[in-house]
Amino acid sequence: MSEALRIGVAGLGVVGTGTLTVLDRHHQLIAERCGRPVTVTAVSARDRRKERGLDLSAVRWFDDPTAMARDGEIDVIVELIGGAEGVAKDVVETALAHGKHVVTANKAMLAHHGTAFAARAEEAGAVLACEAAVCGGIPVIKTLREGMAANALQAVYGILNGSSNYILSTMRDTGREFGEVLADTQKLGYAEADPSLDVDGIDAAHKLAILAALAFNTRISYDEIHVEGIREVSALDITYAEELGYRIKLLGIARLADGGMEQRVHPCMVPKTAPIANVEGVNNAVVAEGDFVGNILTEGAGAGQGPTASAVVADIIDVARGTHLPTFAVPASSLQPVLSRTMSEHQGGYYLRLMCLDRPGVLTEITAALRDEGISVESMVQRGRGPAGEPVPIVITTHETQEAGMMRALRAIEHLDAVLEPPRLIRIEDL
Amino acid sequence: MSEALRIGVAGLGVVGTGTLTVLDRHHQLIAERCGRPVTVTAVSARDRRKERGLDLSAVRWFDDPTAMARDGEIDVIVELIGGAEGVAKDVVETALAHGKHVVTANKAMLAHHGTAFAARAEEAGAVLACEAAVCGGIPVIKTLREGMAANALQAVYGILNGSSNYILSTMRDTGREFGEVLADTQKLGYAEADPSLDVDGIDAAHKLAILAALAFNTRISYDEIHVEGIREVSALDITYAEELGYRIKLLGIARLADGGMEQRVHPCMVPKTAPIANVEGVNNAVVAEGDFVGNILTEGAGAGQGPTASAVVADIIDVARGTHLPTFAVPASSLQPVLSRTMSEHQGGYYLRLMCLDRPGVLTEITAALRDEGISVESMVQRGRGPAGEPVPIVITTHETQEAGMMRALRAIEHLDAVLEPPRLIRIEDL
Repeated sequence: MSEALRIGVAGLGVVGTGTLTVLDRHHQLIAERCGRPVTVTAVSARDRRKERGLDLSAVRWFDDPTAMARDGEIDVIVELIGGAEGVAKDVVETALAHGKHVVTANKAMLAHHGTAFAARAEEAGAVLACEAAVCGGIPVIKTLREGMAANALQAVYGILNGSSNYILSTMRDTGREFGEVLADTQKLGYAEADPSLDVDGIDAAHKLAILAALAFNTRISYDEIHVEGIREVSALDITYAEELGYRIKLLGIARLADGGMEQRVHPCMVPKTAPIANVEGVNNAVVAEGDFVGNILTEGAGAGQGPTASAVVADIIDVARGTHLPTFAVPASSLQPVLSRTMSEHQGGYYLRLMCLDRPGVLTEITAALRDEGISVESMVQRGRGPAGEPVPIVITTHETQEAGMMRALRAIEHLDAVLEPPRLIRIEDL
Repeated sequence: MSEALRIGVAGLGVVGTGTLTVLDRHHQLIAERCGRPVTVTAVSARDRRKERGLDLSAVRWFDDPTAMARDGEIDVIVELIGGAEGVAKDVVETALAHGKHVVTANKAMLAHHGTAFAARAEEAGAVLACEAAVCGGIPVIKTLREGMAANALQAVYGILNGSSNYILSTMRDTGREFGEVLADTQKLGYAEADPSLDVDGIDAAHKLAILAALAFNTRISYDEIHVEGIREVSALDITYAEELGYRIKLLGIARLADGGMEQRVHPCMVPKTAPIANVEGVNNAVVAEGDFVGNILTEGAGAGQGPTASAVVADIIDVARGTHLPTFAVPASSLQPVLSRTMSEHQGGYYLRLMCLDRPGVLTEITAALRDEGISVESMVQRGRGPAGEPVPIVITTHETQEAGMMRALRAIEHLDAVLEPPRLIRIEDL
């Protein structure tokens, strides 16, 4: 058996301790699968005295993770500190500068610096691997970079944030509103005290940036992503979605269209029959469309200690086995710039919910505004009747149209006297 | 760019021509992803004159694929002839004996000779890769061998045969019986003229043998698999399954239990809410249960020209990139023998449908037979009333029990005077 692969772990939070646990518990199994032992020889974290349930007596301790990243007796630095800048970035840069392989779960850092880091890794002859950065335990990076490598991809999309999916699933199951369900979700530990990364779509956008680069062999272009979260999704919209044969999911979507690339994160109505519509709770799922293979879906736990550690260790095992591939499937120098399509160019169907006075002529005014933009109505529902003077919902779905025209129609509709609240718009994805 | 990887393709049927098409259409893309060109330099098939829509003028032709497998100017032999024995086997043995890498889609051959071939490949320092052999385009082998490599696996199961899944899906959608739907499926080209490989579970068992070896790092043990097909599934059972909250799927299941391994292919009742219950039509899907990552599902096209060729070329790309891993995740010498559990040891719930005379005392006789074996009834449905003398269905589901006792109870029930037809039994899988 060859000599051990020496690992230094920077950051001993949930994922760091999980990683050490996996490497310890499966030491023998991993050695068999790699043809060599994988040994943690050093760790670094903020507080040495904190009780972590780990025996670190045989491991070198570094107060300074950047010093560890320079250490001559470590082959792979595992960066689990987090954050796009600061210490995490220093550690990765230092490790690569010293020719070490880097395994990281840091999606924010890669969304901002992924292309540059991939180039540095290649110059150094080192691996920069990040399976754990996208959808936790699901081997989606491997699927895109290797499993589907024979295909030109047309699109990659998915449920990339478990907290948001849990909230939307729970809203549907219970009929309750976003705010209430969010509060419960925080109590359960499925959402952070500051839920913004999750429910405002930022976390999903970080992951989408990485997936798009991998799928289309383009440079990371996080800043080009259109991002909307789920705060505006109401119980009423979820009910109407069900009636219309849809489910509301927060999707991240990267798609080639007319020579450009759309990258967007927003709530979508997806047909109930689409495989991704049935991905519930905290699970994540990603679908990639290849020209020969068709659609491949992968589903599993997108976060959590065990699943994320599983992906970190899978990357380490790849390194130990000698699988040294470019971070984004092709050499960084071959990554193409992104020609982005703006949202106003987006083509698709739309769901509109308007809260209107129930009086003659309202429907005519609304449909005229749509007609003026050449928008064709697919279905319209007005039902029930509130107390006098209370608004009633009118729900419209449209055939495929261009977003620019839809936005103009929406502004016209918003200004109608009979329309009492800002219209709600949700894009329909015919997946 | 490094020198080209030279490919020889043996067999130019549907998958062979698909493979050449992928390698031709994506020649540039693949070269970028591999850091070197991948070039088909030789082919072999039975009839040189057959029109295949391919330009083979720049490629060497071999009438004898075994001669091609010996050729000094080929790095990888792609075996797409098929069949467990005969020419396909000769080609693979010859290629490995000459130190060439082998990529194959031949599940029957691997189910019978996989362990021995993996050992030969290792001795020769060659890769033996078979992603296309299991579920066509879905990268399930890569997921088990690499993506989940940090886990000890507890189970792997899936919808491994698209034709059977299509037939069961269509039976459910249309309410028609197996024979009729099979005939239509054959007309559509989704089932062979001799459908036995598909509907009798043999094809699924070939794939399960490979998945089990990969998941548990054991020797291939195809002969130990318990195999039942879908010929006995009736429209009536499908209707009852729906009512009870289940769908009927033909699953291949390999699971560790009490220190042994169950390997079985048979129709199952799975909860409608299980992700795998929603895999419809010709799609395949595989779920693997890891101790850290939990359940990972992969779904996609399990057969067809494009998807299968996609998997063949993914294996070729791995070779071109220098990813050289053991066929079944660990060296062949480390593959453990299988300690099989017999079906009589199986523990699970059961669905029973009995066609009985509608007369007093029948239910007592039946439930007594179950009680005598310590089997606990979960639900019982007797409904409607046929013309006098016609049998009525009685449907029973049981709590988890051991199969040996269930079979004894079934024999007792079968001999009751009031039970007019052989009982139908379908195992319930609480996935």
